[in-house]
Amino acid sequence: MKPTDPITRLVNAFARLPGVGERTASRLAFFILSQPAEIAGELAEALVEIKQKVGMCQRCCNLTDATFCSICTSPRRRRDIICVVENTPDLRAIENTGEFRGTYHVLHGLISPLEGVGPDDVHIMELLQRLEPGQNARCVLPGDADPSADAQSAGYDGADADQEDRVTEIIIATSPSIDGEATSLYLSRLIRPLGVRLTRIASGVPIGSELEYTDKSTLSRALSERRLL
Amino acid sequence: MKPTDPITRLVNAFARLPGVGERTASRLAFFILSQPAEIAGELAEALVEIKQKVGMCQRCCNLTDATFCSICTSPRRRRDIICVVENTPDLRAIENTGEFRGTYHVLHGLISPLEGVGPDDVHIMELLQRLEPGQNARCVLPGDADPSADAQSAGYDGADADQEDRVTEIIIATSPSIDGEATSLYLSRLIRPLGVRLTRIASGVPIGSELEYTDKSTLSRALSERRLL
Repeated sequence: MKPTDPITRLVNAFARLPGVGERTASRLAFFILSQPAEIAGELAEALVEIKQKVGMCQRCCNLTDATFCSICTSPRRRRDIICVVENTPDLRAIENTGEFRGTYHVLHGLISPLEGVGPDDVHIMELLQRLEPGQNARCVLPGDADPSADAQSAGYDGADADQEDRVTEIIIATSPSIDGEATSLYLSRLIRPLGVRLTRIASGVPIGSELEYTDKSTLSRALSERRLL
Repeated sequence: MKPTDPITRLVNAFARLPGVGERTASRLAFFILSQPAEIAGELAEALVEIKQKVGMCQRCCNLTDATFCSICTSPRRRRDIICVVENTPDLRAIENTGEFRGTYHVLHGLISPLEGVGPDDVHIMELLQRLEPGQNARCVLPGDADPSADAQSAGYDGADADQEDRVTEIIIATSPSIDGEATSLYLSRLIRPLGVRLTRIASGVPIGSELEYTDKSTLSRALSERRLL
């Protein structure tokens, strides 16, 4: 049952956000009340707009308001190198380094046997489709309408690109966590037979940190993956 | 200039909320994206609704979606005792104790000479109006339409109550901070000549805390305001 009091309704709606408890939700609601109506209006508008307009790039599953994302359609990105990431924030983190000039594939999750998340629950099929154009898996957000109808409207034609760019390297950039490693292992078993160069981001002691305070697993990984100087 | 990307727009809108930095705003936006459209929709709706419907109680300046708030219209509350608070969250904190059966007056701010907030910037006139019914100050949110037009529609008639209940006690419940004390002092100088019993909430060592870790000002206040056993 919905509460009828507008303040309680807003507090409840805020409290559903991650990391927002009842106290914070209440503070946010009173902040909204104390501000000009534009603050509330623009947030409300942005909330509605993002759910209406943002879907998945049909090629790399990145989130975008177009048929293909700005990275896939950029002529300056190397489409033969694909960096596989867990989600869009991870993609943004890599973009922020300014070091990567290839394209991405966003899994929107990691395989997690403990949590019952299997390979079919993340967007692995769509990655394989990019390696073997015979298949017909397109990135679609659950609940979205079939996007193939308006695919023509995009300036960039996904099908063309599949033929144009043979993928030469897949970089698996999932986190070095249990699920990230499991996903990496699963992907490597699938992709290795295809003869594509397969790499994994390095794990080790973070730059600027002290060996003394580095945890055991990181340090032993740094040792076992030491490189020649 | 507004950014055109819906994700950036939502991130920016979230980042304007207090205590929400860019990283948190980004996390919230991606959470919204990952959830069913209802989550975003209900938050958007609540945001619009709260700004449309919530205004000030014409009697006590509490926030409400009616002409008079639920506390002012409750037959079980003593209208002759008024507890003066800084804002609605403070009112809620006192309500949560379940100890107070009087009514409130919400100042929506504290007098703060350092920040240039004077007595006219907080709702003190409306409090005096309740003590001296000759005046004609009604609580109105800035930017709200004149509420007197629809005052008839409320089940409770504010003017009646002003004659009915002579105020017998004013409890000043502003925080024991510099601004809270300044406001208390100002109010006491205004109200004392009217012959109304005037009280201030107690300050001292909080229940359950250790004397050892109590700050100097609190401890010296607790000493100077010691009471007979």
